[in-house]
Amino acid sequence: MKQIEIPAPNEQIRPLLEQKINNLTKPKGSLGRLEELALQIGLIQQTLTPQLCHPQNIIFAADHGIVAEGVSVSPKEITWQQIFNFLHGGAGVNFLCRQHGFELKIVDAGVDYDLPYDRGIINRKVRRGTANFLHEAAMSEEEMERCLEHGAEVVEQCRKEGSNVLSFGEMGIGNTSASSLWMHTLTGIPLADCVGAGSGLNQEGVSHKLHVLQQALDNYRGNGTTVDLMRYFGGLEMVMAVGAMLQAAQRGMVILVDGFIMTNCILAASKLSPEVLKYAIFCHCGDEAGHRLVLDALDAKPILHLGLRLGEGTGAICAYPIIDSAVRMINEMDSFAHASITKYF
Amino acid sequence: MKQIEIPAPNEQIRPLLEQKINNLTKPKGSLGRLEELALQIGLIQQTLTPQLCHPQNIIFAADHGIVAEGVSVSPKEITWQQIFNFLHGGAGVNFLCRQHGFELKIVDAGVDYDLPYDRGIINRKVRRGTANFLHEAAMSEEEMERCLEHGAEVVEQCRKEGSNVLSFGEMGIGNTSASSLWMHTLTGIPLADCVGAGSGLNQEGVSHKLHVLQQALDNYRGNGTTVDLMRYFGGLEMVMAVGAMLQAAQRGMVILVDGFIMTNCILAASKLSPEVLKYAIFCHCGDEAGHRLVLDALDAKPILHLGLRLGEGTGAICAYPIIDSAVRMINEMDSFAHASITKYF
Repeated sequence: MKQIEIPAPNEQIRPLLEQKINNLTKPKGSLGRLEELALQIGLIQQTLTPQLCHPQNIIFAADHGIVAEGVSVSPKEITWQQIFNFLHGGAGVNFLCRQHGFELKIVDAGVDYDLPYDRGIINRKVRRGTANFLHEAAMSEEEMERCLEHGAEVVEQCRKEGSNVLSFGEMGIGNTSASSLWMHTLTGIPLADCVGAGSGLNQEGVSHKLHVLQQALDNYRGNGTTVDLMRYFGGLEMVMAVGAMLQAAQRGMVILVDGFIMTNCILAASKLSPEVLKYAIFCHCGDEAGHRLVLDALDAKPILHLGLRLGEGTGAICAYPIIDSAVRMINEMDSFAHASITKYF
Repeated sequence: MKQIEIPAPNEQIRPLLEQKINNLTKPKGSLGRLEELALQIGLIQQTLTPQLCHPQNIIFAADHGIVAEGVSVSPKEITWQQIFNFLHGGAGVNFLCRQHGFELKIVDAGVDYDLPYDRGIINRKVRRGTANFLHEAAMSEEEMERCLEHGAEVVEQCRKEGSNVLSFGEMGIGNTSASSLWMHTLTGIPLADCVGAGSGLNQEGVSHKLHVLQQALDNYRGNGTTVDLMRYFGGLEMVMAVGAMLQAAQRGMVILVDGFIMTNCILAASKLSPEVLKYAIFCHCGDEAGHRLVLDALDAKPILHLGLRLGEGTGAICAYPIIDSAVRMINEMDSFAHASITKYF
């Protein structure tokens, strides 16, 4: 695999950003998280006047062979049916994109269905769903490489369209199973703590899912590197998201991290290039068991706790106005000196 | 005091709202807090298609006699200086109002300064700041009644302008002291747990503030009713906010509750008319010591935890897009039946 070098943002501008934020007309620190976000985005963009341009939400979609083992309450056809729902504008992600001015891109990373590419879906189908990782690797090395490259290409396209902030979402029945295995193998957190209800399993269903995933793990004979674990258990849409995140960071874009699956994607990305985290804003901690734990493992402080577990990028887009507030704060608030207010600290 | 009757929303529509929300194209419950908010607003407005119209943020401003005892790190003149900052558009609340389309109303409830009323400030000055409650009641009964009435009038004006959702904020150096006493006396939570740093006291400053407030409490000889406690310790802006909240609830408007001070105002309002809470959305839990405790006492689950402690309504306005998302969800998302998606639960 090609090594991706991501530079950390230059720290020289940090004291200037802090000085600007501390001289806005408010008690020092009293805008809390908004001040931290303004600092982070100022560092990423290397400017005292950061801007968020043309936000886009990219949904990578694919199917998962492991679904044959009954690990999801949702039937596999939900993957393609939801894609039609995205096209019609009736899904959760649609109203949020409209509300906050996000362009929505839908990328077929490997859906097991013939989708209509004349209706705006971006065709990057690497294969029709992954193999069943209970018995064999989800994809070949070559397929994994193609996923990473396609993810980077899509981000590059967004960049050419003028975007400097991207959120990533996913649609793929079965992908909490793949994510739980990435999380367990990349963090060492016990598997049982990484496995949850997905789209709505009951307790018996979760037990069965855990049993299947443990078996898959017992059957795994790979070398245990991040790349091999990604390939063996990974969803095509998840590997594509990893490629996208690495490219976005390399280009100095702001990455909005959505829910459980996308958090595990940036976890994997960070194992390949740790500096990717400097470009990531963790937007939401959801209800899926394990999400809080993987966020803790990344030392991440998500902006929202709304109990969402829908995916699609919904948690990331919900947090966008808060991030936008931070940028407006540093650009639009007056300084004590200019507003002729007694500076009282 | 005139008793204000607030009816609870009619519960008959609840099952219809739940049915509509559960049939949107998402796993049941997977939009978490958004689903709860949509239900609450549907109940308040008694409709399956709720709407948020012409949001306004009303800042009640006043001065506090207790500031003479050195309970705040900020000098008293910050109250009027910040009002000029609001007029110029350079304060925290201004960029948030612009971002989310809020009209901003500034009400002089009792600022100890001659403000320019030709520049849009609403003049409801009841007196030039409260008396120092270390030695005497902050205001007379008649002044308290006028505050309550003025608060209701301002809300009625907003209603006539077409608003059905209001957030309330405050500007008043010293008002965390008054709020801590309301909180302690109305909930029974130990005073030390109700007292915090305000706009930035150090540990020594907080100890002094606690000592002053304990003395004030020792000197209090009133009858301990909610009304008497409001009058004795209350800020003019705080009592006006109580009157505003009661009126908003009576008119079936959505009340957005901001930070520590406004949470104590709705606490007081709820002691007068408990049903006011059915109309309240708790928007933010801030960093001021005691805010979490008073929210717990109200069994309130705030939407955001951003570490804000600025007041002005900023926490409430920051949460508005989330509330707007909930309303868009119930109106804009498609149903399983209509979208031809297999319903999988």
